[in-house]
Amino acid sequence: MSTTVLAPSLTEVKTLIDARLSDYCKVRTLSAAQVGERYQLLWNSISTLLEKGGKRLRPFMLITAFDTHAPDGDIEAILPAALAQEMIHVAMLIHDDIIDRDDTRYGIKNIIGQYEDLYVPYIQDPQERTHMTHATALLAGDVLLSDSYRLLSRVNCAPEVITQAMAILSNGVFEVVGGELLDTESSFIASSDIHAENIARYKTASYSFISPLTMGATLAGAAPEEIRLLHQFAEVLGVGYQLRDDLLGTFGEESQTGKSTSTDITEGKRTFLIEQFELCATATQKKQFAEIFHNPDASDEAISAAKNILRESGAKARVEERITDLQQTAEKIIALLSISDEAKKPFQQLMAICLDRES
Amino acid sequence: MSTTVLAPSLTEVKTLIDARLSDYCKVRTLSAAQVGERYQLLWNSISTLLEKGGKRLRPFMLITAFDTHAPDGDIEAILPAALAQEMIHVAMLIHDDIIDRDDTRYGIKNIIGQYEDLYVPYIQDPQERTHMTHATALLAGDVLLSDSYRLLSRVNCAPEVITQAMAILSNGVFEVVGGELLDTESSFIASSDIHAENIARYKTASYSFISPLTMGATLAGAAPEEIRLLHQFAEVLGVGYQLRDDLLGTFGEESQTGKSTSTDITEGKRTFLIEQFELCATATQKKQFAEIFHNPDASDEAISAAKNILRESGAKARVEERITDLQQTAEKIIALLSISDEAKKPFQQLMAICLDRES
Repeated sequence: MSTTVLAPSLTEVKTLIDARLSDYCKVRTLSAAQVGERYQLLWNSISTLLEKGGKRLRPFMLITAFDTHAPDGDIEAILPAALAQEMIHVAMLIHDDIIDRDDTRYGIKNIIGQYEDLYVPYIQDPQERTHMTHATALLAGDVLLSDSYRLLSRVNCAPEVITQAMAILSNGVFEVVGGELLDTESSFIASSDIHAENIARYKTASYSFISPLTMGATLAGAAPEEIRLLHQFAEVLGVGYQLRDDLLGTFGEESQTGKSTSTDITEGKRTFLIEQFELCATATQKKQFAEIFHNPDASDEAISAAKNILRESGAKARVEERITDLQQTAEKIIALLSISDEAKKPFQQLMAICLDRES
Repeated sequence: MSTTVLAPSLTEVKTLIDARLSDYCKVRTLSAAQVGERYQLLWNSISTLLEKGGKRLRPFMLITAFDTHAPDGDIEAILPAALAQEMIHVAMLIHDDIIDRDDTRYGIKNIIGQYEDLYVPYIQDPQERTHMTHATALLAGDVLLSDSYRLLSRVNCAPEVITQAMAILSNGVFEVVGGELLDTESSFIASSDIHAENIARYKTASYSFISPLTMGATLAGAAPEEIRLLHQFAEVLGVGYQLRDDLLGTFGEESQTGKSTSTDITEGKRTFLIEQFELCATATQKKQFAEIFHNPDASDEAISAAKNILRESGAKARVEERITDLQQTAEKIIALLSISDEAKKPFQQLMAICLDRES
């Protein structure tokens, strides 16, 4: 057996990915300048967002799945695939922000927010300006979506493995588009397929968990059975991540999550928590809650009361229970993986990061 | 020398591509149904547009460049790359229609138009409904953009050639995004890089001409010098195609082009024709024209007068001249290609289709 070399930690992956993305942005910005000054400006804006980024969890998952299944494998060779995970994520976030009409991301102005400022001197009508900022953000997302495939094609692996990796990436995009559609339409269409766990499976688990974990193992040449297990693990982890997100969105600490804990209630977001509430609440609780839910003018006291109703009805506990179920399933899958106990540790760490987090 | 087998004609390519796209749509619609009924509906809508399609000029260019440079090559092996050209094109059209707020394409309702009808029962506010139809079209374009890479990864060629093909596709997307941005911003920002021929180079020539022609030759294993020549030919052809489009947009026969010949004038579109007018018109002509240009309320008589001014100023003739220049350059490049005179014929045919067309 070869000496055990510890897989890179999340912090180490973040440092590596930050540096490489920054290099990538520099090269692309120079190419954009050749097309025109205005395109260079767009790449400046894209770079701000890509370089800010989040925890780089997706590259970490890909590298972990690769490294634990090919301990002697060369991380450098598959690094473009790790970058591709981050790039497709930012592409989808940019488009998601258009759909949700958000102008901030990672605590800074996103493409829409930055272009809102840039276009003020040129377009006076606010509605027209919004259309144009959305158009620009649409184009920014397109080029990043496309570039994620460009990056993936540069992986230094056996060609049949790269073809498999491409199929994994496109399955992820195919599913996340379906999940986004279900989620968006759920705000105005009632449909039997539109329920929170299904949306989480397609919107959150697909390209954010299934793609990086199965792609990492595929690039390592892992056996199909092992990849099947990682697929299941990723699905459970992704759905659990989303349910934890739903809980934090209402009961989290705003100072830690950086997100408001009232908007899910005032905007009437049909999360898994709300679905559970409908299954377990009394008629009185439902009536009281309905007066506050989806009411943008609800007072702080009313929102606080709504949170109490969600707690008292048992809905919060039901979500916690479901997360515990998913945790146990994930642990069972980890036990079945054909890697050493040492190699299983980063997967347990991943579970803690996704399911036990407070931000 | 092998027996000359004639390259497939445009009509033959269209029949082939139509059939394969239809098969592709069936498979994808079934997969979408597994995600949810509403996603299946979106794929029905996408299929309508993909199956209707246009002349399939991009797949024709790819197959022609491949077939003339690898006369014994297997078209079946590279067919996914030809489909990818059509798919990326429809993806970009769907997103372009969002930017331009158009609801028809190929004479039928596009995704926006179809969803406008579908969402009427659910969303009463027209502005809100528009936002949601745009969101759905955005998602439709994303999945097609992604699927064009999926298709390309399935080409049956040497792996290093597939990597080159991926780079060509992503260069095309990178450039068309820049071209689209310049074009969109040109309606409200004056910038020295924003002029019609530069926009045509990036918006029209890039992914629609350069990608299919250089990719076809690359898949055929053509020499770098030959690919460089095809790149130049494609650039000239693409710019010429756009200039011809500008002329048809004002002086064409609506019954043949299917497009209004007044909107370029009433919407104040800054085409190459208008740029030439500004260079050659007299002060009086400019003054008369300015009263009609960019005036949505202009009468039919006024529009007809504007067209006469464009003719009399010499602007129309200058565009014709520029197209003739480009035609001559394209012919010179064809002469330099290292293929037989017989094999050069489809390139001459392509020139006629793009530059001499009346629709």
